[in-house]
Amino acid sequence: MMRSELGYSTRENIYVQGRDLCGEILGHIDLGAMAFLQLTGRMPNPNEARLFNALAITLVEHGITPSAIAARMTYVGAPEALQSAVAAGLCGLGTVFAGTSEGAARLLRQALADPADTRSFEERAEEIVARSVREGWSIPGVGHPIHRPVDPRTVRLFAIAEETGFKGRYVAMMQALHRAFEKHKGRPITLNATGAMGALCCELGLPVEACRGIAVMARAIGLVGHILEEIRSPMSIELWQKVEHDVSVPPAERGKAG
Amino acid sequence: MMRSELGYSTRENIYVQGRDLCGEILGHIDLGAMAFLQLTGRMPNPNEARLFNALAITLVEHGITPSAIAARMTYVGAPEALQSAVAAGLCGLGTVFAGTSEGAARLLRQALADPADTRSFEERAEEIVARSVREGWSIPGVGHPIHRPVDPRTVRLFAIAEETGFKGRYVAMMQALHRAFEKHKGRPITLNATGAMGALCCELGLPVEACRGIAVMARAIGLVGHILEEIRSPMSIELWQKVEHDVSVPPAERGKAG
Amino acid sequence: MMRSELGYSTRENIYVQGRDLCGEILGHIDLGAMAFLQLTGRMPNPNEARLFNALAITLVEHGITPSAIAARMTYVGAPEALQSAVAAGLCGLGTVFAGTSEGAARLLRQALADPADTRSFEERAEEIVARSVREGWSIPGVGHPIHRPVDPRTVRLFAIAEETGFKGRYVAMMQALHRAFEKHKGRPITLNATGAMGALCCELGLPVEACRGIAVMARAIGLVGHILEEIRSPMSIELWQKVEHDVSVPPAERGKAG
Amino acid sequence: MMRSELGYSTRENIYVQGRDLCGEILGHIDLGAMAFLQLTGRMPNPNEARLFNALAITLVEHGITPSAIAARMTYVGAPEALQSAVAAGLCGLGTVFAGTSEGAARLLRQALADPADTRSFEERAEEIVARSVREGWSIPGVGHPIHRPVDPRTVRLFAIAEETGFKGRYVAMMQALHRAFEKHKGRPITLNATGAMGALCCELGLPVEACRGIAVMARAIGLVGHILEEIRSPMSIELWQKVEHDVSVPPAERGKAG
Repeated sequence: MMRSELGYSTRENIYVQGRDLCGEILGHIDLGAMAFLQLTGRMPNPNEARLFNALAITLVEHGITPSAIAARMTYVGAPEALQSAVAAGLCGLGTVFAGTSEGAARLLRQALADPADTRSFEERAEEIVARSVREGWSIPGVGHPIHRPVDPRTVRLFAIAEETGFKGRYVAMMQALHRAFEKHKGRPITLNATGAMGALCCELGLPVEACRGIAVMARAIGLVGHILEEIRSPMSIELWQKVEHDVSVPPAERGKAG
Repeated sequence: MMRSELGYSTRENIYVQGRDLCGEILGHIDLGAMAFLQLTGRMPNPNEARLFNALAITLVEHGITPSAIAARMTYVGAPEALQSAVAAGLCGLGTVFAGTSEGAARLLRQALADPADTRSFEERAEEIVARSVREGWSIPGVGHPIHRPVDPRTVRLFAIAEETGFKGRYVAMMQALHRAFEKHKGRPITLNATGAMGALCCELGLPVEACRGIAVMARAIGLVGHILEEIRSPMSIELWQKVEHDVSVPPAERGKAG
Repeated sequence: MMRSELGYSTRENIYVQGRDLCGEILGHIDLGAMAFLQLTGRMPNPNEARLFNALAITLVEHGITPSAIAARMTYVGAPEALQSAVAAGLCGLGTVFAGTSEGAARLLRQALADPADTRSFEERAEEIVARSVREGWSIPGVGHPIHRPVDPRTVRLFAIAEETGFKGRYVAMMQALHRAFEKHKGRPITLNATGAMGALCCELGLPVEACRGIAVMARAIGLVGHILEEIRSPMSIELWQKVEHDVSVPPAERGKAG
Repeated sequence: MMRSELGYSTRENIYVQGRDLCGEILGHIDLGAMAFLQLTGRMPNPNEARLFNALAITLVEHGITPSAIAARMTYVGAPEALQSAVAAGLCGLGTVFAGTSEGAARLLRQALADPADTRSFEERAEEIVARSVREGWSIPGVGHPIHRPVDPRTVRLFAIAEETGFKGRYVAMMQALHRAFEKHKGRPITLNATGAMGALCCELGLPVEACRGIAVMARAIGLVGHILEEIRSPMSIELWQKVEHDVSVPPAERGKAG
């Protein structure tokens, strides 16, 4: 049967997630708590709200990423449709940039799924690393091209998790995985922000799909900022013309090595 | 010259809007304040943050809207790309549903643009209503199909504006416009939430494009919630099949009146 | 009443636009004729099909445009969702790049709407140019940054229109408008491909919205080609890193002139 | 090194895929041949063009699909941005609806990859079916909810392939796979259009990603048709209101079984 329980309106009232929007929500909670409510259907307590806000804030802005370039390039052609520029930027938040924390969350849930599993976290971690090598996939949440050997966001997020009482077994499992991976590689490797976030989404009891959802909502905020900067201080036309000039191969040169 | 000032990374640090993400932002502010920072480049004070959070929260969830249906229908075909389902839903936040508060903000800015204008707000409002009739366009921010004669969100948002010291001249101008429009129509008309939001964006000193930007970011949060509900409690396949069955006209009936 | 007449399936047959897909369409017509059928609900004759094919083909490929950059940047992050990369690229086909032929078509329809209007095309054109100057808008379909003073596509499209019997009064009106605009400017101005296409969409009896629709479908083909080139010969990661490096302003430099 | 060879412009000429757009392409080929050129970089011969046109045409229109609903729902909110409505519709062409022919193409290429493999097609097909059962995945290209036991498009596409000389070993392998699957199931199963298309993309030498690319371009044409029908004969507002009314659960009913 088709049902949706998220919103409901009467002549006098608007209900969101079963609560009176004007009486219980507006002016009473912040946007991060509202997002938690919208994703889970229940109001977060202050510790949950604090951690969730931090998770989302971490992903708002990352400088000139491919998704920011896509959004700005779209705005150039359709300045009447800011929403589509943001949409274009969001379309690129796929497996490469936004799939890692979801992958980490999935892996951590599997690792801790069986209550009858008596192995230590270290043993489980070593088994997972061995399996990843055997099957040819990468451990999500480890490694970073710039932040080496430490991702400052991981440190800060785990500190907030500790303050709010959410530094639990998923964080411990992620740290065990990190150590097992470093041991396998024989050198320091970064435990990156996506690994931390995957673990913390699990700690908050969110479904694994929420990991990517948080990235998407956070980046929507970030991309609106990019469009407003593009309006104040345009770069896209110049960038386009420069790129077109630099890469276009004249017909006579086609097929020759680059 | 091409420049972007939104984000910057070094090996040890990440800067967002010129501030140390881990030291100054994470754990210190909420997601609404972060969005204000990302859109304006400066940290909001507590009153600005409170009002901005309320504006964004107002737009997160509106039940089964066309954009929610679009997002869910997209998810059905591409469940591996949650980000694209949200993007598809955002594409519909155009002039019809998200353009009104921007229109209201633009109109209010024009009405109060000339510091040498000595007319009262009532006189300006009556001139605007008269002009709208003469030129055939609608006053944005007035009227509502369900919330009549009062939109509870307008009441609540103006109350928060008063508490935070932002019930200023743009709100007064919007209210004058509302009264002039009611006078013109000769009956009570709702001052709706988009009118209130347009006025409050002006009070916060945001550029008019930020009105639609806030709608887009808020709805991104809302749409993630819709996708998570679709995962928990699917309706889209059933809805699609029902619609297809109901509307498809057999070849023999083509071109006959509906 | 809700009705759709575009497609219908039974166990044995599929009908598109009231025709048997397998018996009447597949193998009998080309993709341009199919698009004409899908947009208008009727099968084109050979002349209509030839002209429509040419219109769509004109817009397939334009090198490294903003929409191509947006599509490639999206593919980098979500290579599992080629459809979303194309979608991101299409989002930028708004008023700036794809609105001009629609604008031209609209203007030409208005110019020729009144059967009782006894003025010559020259008189109408001069009145339109004078009005555009007075009201501060641009004549669509004239001017080009590169193809000066002649856009070779315009010459070729008008030649095909002549061969197929579609060089009629909308083309004549567009040419009159072009001459009137050159006279107003006192120098040669290009009659560009979008002006030609707007006129030819009118000649084919298509609704004005079809102008942008043809651009969208043609560019979808073009963008698939860009993604396949990106797969064969990637440039987007390198481009992203170069742009990020070039434009990112360190925190200490924020707010200083660019 | 960053290079793009698809398009190039000079003052007098436009080159697409190394060819003079106005002299060699416009008026000389149809849109399907143009798409083949854009995807492969070479001009198709008449047989290739005929088969490719048929493949693309097959996917243009399928009635009121989820992607058509998404496009129409988007248009309702942003009628000024037809391109975004089409984009929203395309975002749903993911693994569920458009991934099957790509999956079939990938499987067929693997099955025929090893020139030293001396097994018959039947032996290979039985091994693949056995493997799919063992590993828990589905054979792509078989089964259909409506067209049973025969998909008329498969019959027609294979007939065109035969006429054009492209009914080769990939088609034979797909047919062997179909027979092996029927044998495994012990009842007639449809060899559907996506299976036929996957095989024929291989016959044409297209990369596997082109399968989804053809679906995307074809559906872009289809969706423009849906938007034009929505303009002529709107259904989306009514549909939205009906759905909202039918599915919205009042706050008091939240959480009770559906």
